[in-house]
Amino acid sequence: MTLRIIASGGTFDKHYNELNGSLGFADSHLPQAIARSRMTINPALELLPLMDSLDMQDEDRQRILASCQAAKEHAIVIIHGTDTMKETAAVLGAANLGSTIVLTGAMIPYEIANSDALFNLGFACGVAQILTPGVYVAMNGKVFPWDNVQKNRAAGVFQNL
Amino acid sequence: MTLRIIASGGTFDKHYNELNGSLGFADSHLPQAIARSRMTINPALELLPLMDSLDMQDEDRQRILASCQAAKEHAIVIIHGTDTMKETAAVLGAANLGSTIVLTGAMIPYEIANSDALFNLGFACGVAQILTPGVYVAMNGKVFPWDNVQKNRAAGVFQNL
Amino acid sequence: MTLRIIASGGTFDKHYNELNGSLGFADSHLPQAIARSRMTINPALELLPLMDSLDMQDEDRQRILASCQAAKEHAIVIIHGTDTMKETAAVLGAANLGSTIVLTGAMIPYEIANSDALFNLGFACGVAQILTPGVYVAMNGKVFPWDNVQKNRAAGVFQNL
Amino acid sequence: MTLRIIASGGTFDKHYNELNGSLGFADSHLPQAIARSRMTINPALELLPLMDSLDMQDEDRQRILASCQAAKEHAIVIIHGTDTMKETAAVLGAANLGSTIVLTGAMIPYEIANSDALFNLGFACGVAQILTPGVYVAMNGKVFPWDNVQKNRAAGVFQNL
Repeated sequence: MTLRIIASGGTFDKHYNELNGSLGFADSHLPQAIARSRMTINPALELLPLMDSLDMQDEDRQRILASCQAAKEHAIVIIHGTDTMKETAAVLGAANLGSTIVLTGAMIPYEIANSDALFNLGFACGVAQILTPGVYVAMNGKVFPWDNVQKNRAAGVFQNL
Repeated sequence: MTLRIIASGGTFDKHYNELNGSLGFADSHLPQAIARSRMTINPALELLPLMDSLDMQDEDRQRILASCQAAKEHAIVIIHGTDTMKETAAVLGAANLGSTIVLTGAMIPYEIANSDALFNLGFACGVAQILTPGVYVAMNGKVFPWDNVQKNRAAGVFQNL
Repeated sequence: MTLRIIASGGTFDKHYNELNGSLGFADSHLPQAIARSRMTINPALELLPLMDSLDMQDEDRQRILASCQAAKEHAIVIIHGTDTMKETAAVLGAANLGSTIVLTGAMIPYEIANSDALFNLGFACGVAQILTPGVYVAMNGKVFPWDNVQKNRAAGVFQNL
Repeated sequence: MTLRIIASGGTFDKHYNELNGSLGFADSHLPQAIARSRMTINPALELLPLMDSLDMQDEDRQRILASCQAAKEHAIVIIHGTDTMKETAAVLGAANLGSTIVLTGAMIPYEIANSDALFNLGFACGVAQILTPGVYVAMNGKVFPWDNVQKNRAAGVFQNL
């Protein structure tokens, strides 16, 4: 059993554009982060269109679902924006795919000091290989079932309902 | 159930001494790394004497064992040097403690560019909360049972026997 | 002769706010950057209100001018946003203060990967101690007189008129 | 007038070898550091054999001298180990080349957290373009003439004789 990592954007992959001073998307940081992890299990990396999860439409979530359905691997990590991570998790959870799917992201972009991105990637890659099939959110060092999780925006942390 | 993180040194925590140009130990990077992880499960951090694992003696491994025996938490992550991680894992494995104990470390120190330390910490903190009781080594994005792991020094990776 | 460093904000000091995902201002990075420089000349650090230079009003430039006038040091480095660096330089240049005043900033914030902030700080702290009295902009590894400089926004670099 | 940067090794360019845990030399960090500086003056980069300055022999200093003599540029920055920076500066100073030559280095390698390398590079690239011809050491935010400088090893700083 190996691992698939699907990048869909979110804070994890935000990039600073020095020409206009904004945070947006360019090349994903996942290839660098995966190389840095020194994972020997040879994970597959699938780059979907990178976007802010507040901009995600139904079709974007369906694209993620289609990627999970097509995956040969039974352990899947999805890098996703935190603001609607729960909504995408619900779409995947309702599909009953039989794989272990773990959504994670970051509160601070990978390229910014003090980022939690690499920790969260490691955490998700670990639990995705061990949890029983199902859909989970992994943030703040904790695993949440897809139907019992919410982002507390004021505190900037994930918690149970 | 919460988590205990025990720091014993190793490459993860090596610090560059600018006065003599050597890599050694000073304050642990674990408080900063844990803060950065934004873990809400409030892990306990226990700082043992930090040392290169090639310098570890029997009494140093017994100290780590004693810390695991005294821990109230049933999930324990031990930050350890990679060179004798297997030997300490064997001491803990033989003790049959009934907890889930995960040893991890790093190939590049936390404070050096391109370090795997934060990924490995995240990975270990994840699997330690889910694996059945036992002693494991978690390196290179993979979980190894304590009695079926070795470091391939030429390649710089962990693998099964 | 020692050195005064005046922080007025700009990209150099932008900070990522993880609660709302925006780049704004919090504590200045200058104390950390100065410590990191290991300067033994004991520079004075003066923190003015940190702001995006596009938001600067006349009174903000007058505040910077007043700081330069009050400074005991004859070498002054001003950390400033790049978009109106030229305008502030013109206010200072017209005042004929008799000190060497060097404005610098960054294209990428100090806390973001690949930032030019620390290079620019070093460059400015060097030339401010050597240039004859006057007002200069130091960016892109080059010194510009205050009345012969412009930011090429499309290319993201400073150049002569 | 443009700028030549000559890399000869030293702490600035030390690289962590993850296979044996030692600090040595591999590819220079100068190409990355120069790109990061966004210098538009198009500096020439010359990579000499990278070495610890404690290992430098007469022939190594002669090689640096030959590079300075052959340089078309009249502003030269030399990246050098701190321990014998003074000795190389004396060789260059005695040669009376008519160029402005600035030796700099770092107390912490470029790739290690809290490094002064990028600050020192910026500082040296600035003063090298402005100082009158001669040979200088630029460290700790200060310019020293080649014949009035020493490293205080206990404090880890450069100072006058």
